[in-house]
Amino acid sequence: LESKLPDVGVSIFSQMTLLAQQTGAINLAQGFPDYDPPLALREALARHALARGSHQYAPMPGLPRLRQAIAAQVGRLQPEAPAPDPDTEITLTAGATEALYSVLAAVVRPGDEVIILEPAYDLYGPTVRLQGGVPRYVRLPTTDFRPDWDAVRAAVTERTRLIMVNSPHNPSGAVFGAEDWDALASLVEDTGLLVLSDEVYEHLVFDGVAPLSARQHPALRARSFVVSSFGKTYHATGWKVGYCLAPPALTAELRRVHQFVTFAVSTPTQHALADVLEADPGDAHARSLASFYQAKRDEFAGLLAGGGWQLRPVPGGYFQLASYEQFSTKGDLAFAEELARSWGVAVVPVSAFYHDGFDAGLVRFCFAKESATLKAAAQRLNRPA
Amino acid sequence: LESKLPDVGVSIFSQMTLLAQQTGAINLAQGFPDYDPPLALREALARHALARGSHQYAPMPGLPRLRQAIAAQVGRLQPEAPAPDPDTEITLTAGATEALYSVLAAVVRPGDEVIILEPAYDLYGPTVRLQGGVPRYVRLPTTDFRPDWDAVRAAVTERTRLIMVNSPHNPSGAVFGAEDWDALASLVEDTGLLVLSDEVYEHLVFDGVAPLSARQHPALRARSFVVSSFGKTYHATGWKVGYCLAPPALTAELRRVHQFVTFAVSTPTQHALADVLEADPGDAHARSLASFYQAKRDEFAGLLAGGGWQLRPVPGGYFQLASYEQFSTKGDLAFAEELARSWGVAVVPVSAFYHDGFDAGLVRFCFAKESATLKAAAQRLNRPA
Ligand SMILES: CSCCC(=O)C(=O)O
Ligand SMILES: CSCCC(=O)C(=O)O
Repeated sequence: LESKLPDVGVSIFSQMTLLAQQTGAINLAQGFPDYDPPLALREALARHALARGSHQYAPMPGLPRLRQAIAAQVGRLQPEAPAPDPDTEITLTAGATEALYSVLAAVVRPGDEVIILEPAYDLYGPTVRLQGGVPRYVRLPTTDFRPDWDAVRAAVTERTRLIMVNSPHNPSGAVFGAEDWDALASLVEDTGLLVLSDEVYEHLVFDGVAPLSARQHPALRARSFVVSSFGKTYHATGWKVGYCLAPPALTAELRRVHQFVTFAVSTPTQHALADVLEADPGDAHARSLASFYQAKRDEFAGLLAGGGWQLRPVPGGYFQLASYEQFSTKGDLAFAEELARSWGVAVVPVSAFYHDGFDAGLVRFCFAKESATLKAAAQRLNRPA
Repeated sequence: LESKLPDVGVSIFSQMTLLAQQTGAINLAQGFPDYDPPLALREALARHALARGSHQYAPMPGLPRLRQAIAAQVGRLQPEAPAPDPDTEITLTAGATEALYSVLAAVVRPGDEVIILEPAYDLYGPTVRLQGGVPRYVRLPTTDFRPDWDAVRAAVTERTRLIMVNSPHNPSGAVFGAEDWDALASLVEDTGLLVLSDEVYEHLVFDGVAPLSARQHPALRARSFVVSSFGKTYHATGWKVGYCLAPPALTAELRRVHQFVTFAVSTPTQHALADVLEADPGDAHARSLASFYQAKRDEFAGLLAGGGWQLRPVPGGYFQLASYEQFSTKGDLAFAEELARSWGVAVVPVSAFYHDGFDAGLVRFCFAKESATLKAAAQRLNRPA
């Protein structure tokens, strides 16, 4: 059996988590918190697990009450944009992963080009290729990882179908400003180009900056699939519930595919999420995330201060990039292995986010960890020179 | 945006469930039980919902303890075949739906032909087409819905990549005998053909017949993806956990795609399933299903006796087919609508299982329902002539 993705192996996230388990390294590699979802959410799932009559197929697009709760929250948090219509503009998916996959499967045809800004989350490129599409990679400047929009524009051809963007950005934490969204809008306006906006870290924007979504720009809203993740927002990456917001015509195409990819999402889990959203009409949880994660970012950076790591600024998300010239001239993959095996801390080498293995000499730490974990990791990372 | 599946609308299952809700019809259409998963399983999910430390990403192929429990059970229930290796031959998926989807996405390339025996579950054809594959439909005889293997063989061309089979069969309930598996084996042996065996009703084989899996035939085991569903086995269609058994080389290709389609399956849900499997080393639950559903089949048939419905034999699964000449000469879709609107019972018209809408004058009842539901439905179905 010839592989359709011969160059794709076990993801770097799984590899590094495995290496952490084998070596006893502290796992700052794969992006997940080491704390639990809020107790109210876990209790809600327990309630619906025990309840009668809520264990069979949910409606294919998602439970109506959860779609309504999402619509209400998005309406409150993005008052400049009309709230999405729960019936025609919201689709629940098996994590943001399935949303990204199903959008690409729904719109990319053989030969279509998709613009991907690198470094990029590992699924983007292979998923485009699985549809017969052709990824067109554009490198983000390794200074601040904000797009050079002229370079993006130069990558557009008559075969371009879609542009993928991700703000806050994994792995760099870069956050689009209004001028980035404007540039993207002017690039796609009056064209047939679509946008897939991966906004799973949407609430994690720091230093008082207001989060901005593709949805807040009218020209983008009309042609964008916007993907979010309860896994990231509720510290529940293992629950596998995400969603996609898109105008009715785009949602219709997404659902045509989603119904064959997974059909529907866990019914008790959707009820639990709906309970918690309904009980939080002031969006206290979502609004608390920026300061919660900013404190973690600052704590981690403070702990590493003076240890010789050159930390990059982190405007958003839950990852810290660092260069490590001082410690090694090895490639980042070899250095990541050394970090796990000899220093006792697992990280992700940023070259894993480039299709061609481009190595900017950066490793990625996940700081979505308990204070005790960050302290223990920092102790290992601050080795005497 | 031009659709990739312009002819595909909302699935017949969703349509009929909606119609049942709108009309107050008893829903014998979509295939799900109206009873709950076993209390022990619901309690296990509640426990893991409340527990700490089991809410982040599961390993991509599934929790090791759940894969081990599945391997052990399959080994016990299929003693003629070696148990699947948990590390290299078992992959947990977001329902059997994702398993079927990801297998097809992993192996079907543009231009590849896939043989589908009709009537067939609605996702098979569109999912093949989404990969650029070409479904080659072979009609099952509408007498007993057992394949005419000469007709299947005649459909094989040099472009054929895969044959999809489904025993016990949805919608007919037909069950492959050893001679069917032998015929399939001799068809694929010494060729490059693969088999995708949808065995989600694997335990629901009636009248004392022993269930047979593609895995029990060595020549098939070597080239088959075998898909099963905790949703069907544990009355938990809304929990969305299924799995795929396949030899290591096939599993590797499935996982290459699965990691980008959903990445992993709900962690607390997998723990709950593992608890219940581990606590049942005699497989009492799985072994109880045949008599449990046979009793439902017999109860429903008994309730309809004398009502003028011509019921087909049901060797397995959880559906009853019936012809309705006596009541209507309409097409089955129109009659299904009449049944929901005027008789008060929702069913699925069997033409929905044919890509070309072939109408054999049959409707499908799901008998996976409480006795009270079956009685109420029968009362509505046994109208005075
Ligand atoms: C699905 S594992 C990867 C998790 C993640 O978002 C990351 O580490 O970047
Ligand atoms: C995913 S909805 C369809 C359920 C089912 O198996 C059927 O009704 O045939």
